[in-house]
Amino acid sequence: MNATPVYLDHNATSPLRPVAYEAMVEALRMGGNPSSVHRSGRRARACIEGARGKVAALVGSLPAEVVFTSGGTEANNAVLTGSGRKRVLVSAVEHDSVRRVVPGAGVIPVDRDGVVDLAALERMLAASPEPALVSVMFANNETGVLQPVADIGRIVRAAGALFHCDAVQAGGKVAIDMHGLGIDYLSLSAHKLGGPPGVGALVLREGAPFSPDRVGGGQEGFRRAGTENVPGIAGFSAAAEAAVNGLDMADWRNRLESALCELAPAARVFGAGAPRLSNTSCISMPGVRAETQVMALDLAGICVSSGAACSSGKVGPSAVLEAMGVDLSESVTALRISFGWNTVFGDIERLIAAWRDLYVRVSQSDISRPQAA
Amino acid sequence: MNATPVYLDHNATSPLRPVAYEAMVEALRMGGNPSSVHRSGRRARACIEGARGKVAALVGSLPAEVVFTSGGTEANNAVLTGSGRKRVLVSAVEHDSVRRVVPGAGVIPVDRDGVVDLAALERMLAASPEPALVSVMFANNETGVLQPVADIGRIVRAAGALFHCDAVQAGGKVAIDMHGLGIDYLSLSAHKLGGPPGVGALVLREGAPFSPDRVGGGQEGFRRAGTENVPGIAGFSAAAEAAVNGLDMADWRNRLESALCELAPAARVFGAGAPRLSNTSCISMPGVRAETQVMALDLAGICVSSGAACSSGKVGPSAVLEAMGVDLSESVTALRISFGWNTVFGDIERLIAAWRDLYVRVSQSDISRPQAA
Repeated sequence: MNATPVYLDHNATSPLRPVAYEAMVEALRMGGNPSSVHRSGRRARACIEGARGKVAALVGSLPAEVVFTSGGTEANNAVLTGSGRKRVLVSAVEHDSVRRVVPGAGVIPVDRDGVVDLAALERMLAASPEPALVSVMFANNETGVLQPVADIGRIVRAAGALFHCDAVQAGGKVAIDMHGLGIDYLSLSAHKLGGPPGVGALVLREGAPFSPDRVGGGQEGFRRAGTENVPGIAGFSAAAEAAVNGLDMADWRNRLESALCELAPAARVFGAGAPRLSNTSCISMPGVRAETQVMALDLAGICVSSGAACSSGKVGPSAVLEAMGVDLSESVTALRISFGWNTVFGDIERLIAAWRDLYVRVSQSDISRPQAA
Repeated sequence: MNATPVYLDHNATSPLRPVAYEAMVEALRMGGNPSSVHRSGRRARACIEGARGKVAALVGSLPAEVVFTSGGTEANNAVLTGSGRKRVLVSAVEHDSVRRVVPGAGVIPVDRDGVVDLAALERMLAASPEPALVSVMFANNETGVLQPVADIGRIVRAAGALFHCDAVQAGGKVAIDMHGLGIDYLSLSAHKLGGPPGVGALVLREGAPFSPDRVGGGQEGFRRAGTENVPGIAGFSAAAEAAVNGLDMADWRNRLESALCELAPAARVFGAGAPRLSNTSCISMPGVRAETQVMALDLAGICVSSGAACSSGKVGPSAVLEAMGVDLSESVTALRISFGWNTVFGDIERLIAAWRDLYVRVSQSDISRPQAA
């Protein structure tokens, strides 16, 4: 086994950036409740108000539009139930924290690359005069596929609907101009961009309707009750500032994908026909179940995943790939590889070598077995 | 101004304990998503499962009964809406994160010390056959008054109702045996006992009905979706372990209260007739508004508060003191002083001296003004 593990599972969680670590350590030492009026409280308040500006800069919003939450799930849940719109449309490839919130939500289909069918969206919006909330993610967590967010924004606005965009995987990877894109509500998670887990944001366009789902104190302008996670917010903002220029890892991703497809010509890159995040590759290893791949690569010191990490280690067919029309026999062989801020070129080479070792081993045993029988 | 500030506002937030700091730093460096199946994920999972046992030990529950949340507000909100009981009774002195959740909830009155009227509770429960949820806190955040939790548990159980106890202020200060006390649901917050903000727990008695209000991934046994706040949970559990023997500060609190009452015989200690947390004193400075006291003491380097901190610096009449029948003219002069794990005897002396200086200054100016006129 190699000495240093290689971590290529940034879409599950990205290691904490050193600047975020430093900001958190400082805030942890500082303490204080931002609602207290004395010096300790005022210092904590100044910390979160400074952070609000940095998170706003990441998505082109006003600082006052940023509401800090406990993470992406809270942001998604809160807007799906709090927009005041009873009619909700979600894409077929949304994360479970969007897809499972409103029973009976309309499901917008996607094409074979996982891109939302814009004509279907228009038809669905036109089918009822009841004003809707449309929730389509910025980038998919499993495939990295980017949605045509500006087009969706235009269609949604023209129909008098509201637009929620789950940008948990896109934040800090691609440029986001929330207002220019016509987004009314946007979700972010700190730990996906090198901040800590346990903190995120719901960015609410000024004037967008919102009833908070957390009730109690008057924190966050009465939009989210509960004592603020000051050290988490400090780490989030430091990571957001470091990530503001995005990630461009397309060359490495292309190198990885061509190498694997050369080793196994039947390997398939899911979403390859669509624009994608440059850090994500979802690729099949023909005939080898993803669990087997994840375990074998883990033994070789490489951390990758099969689909989303959010289902408590559940290994099962991917709803995202199913929505893209991928056969079950192929989707169970899909591995998700995701780079991040601390990925180095040697990590890609290590992965290619370990993937090849596994594939050769399995292919040979497949070939040898019938001969031995 | 004195060099080292004195922090006597632990009921707002308690500074992070060194053991919690160390545990967080380790977890921040470790990273990992507990839902990932590879080594990094397994290590993060081991961290939160170890933490679950330590938090359980604080309240006498089973580890599996502990559901980590983003804090006390989330725990309170989730159980008030998720118990399945539409009929809800809350005491008149509950925190806003309980009191404001269910519109139309019945309000159980308290006596002049802020103790729940048990006969009224029995009558309210008997008034309808509809099964109820009763929410009464363990200890009050403003006065420290302890409720007769065991009696409430017996009455609630006898009526076939469910019992939620907000133990956010009591956790780590007094012994809690959740099962022995007949509590079905219990809320905790890490930052009130020397852990970090942004993390808490809802402890659900095995078998108690609960519909989660966070939907998405399968974390926390499908009881709370969202990637776990691993560093926060690590800090919470280290603080819980350190706090497991409680705090006994009654001698210091008594010394403080007698000193202040000697300086101003008309000063009143709210809740003095009831059992109280030993770390909390809510006391009036006759004729001096609490805002004035908080600001003057802050200038003297002492952090204390007027009522709860949770209302974004809002300074207004206390709903808790109002429920206890305190006149507005008196309740606006109530200062909350709360000790904690890092309080030293000299802090009490500093507070007494600064309180006296302020009181003498204000009294003299009150006396001199009519003479000058």
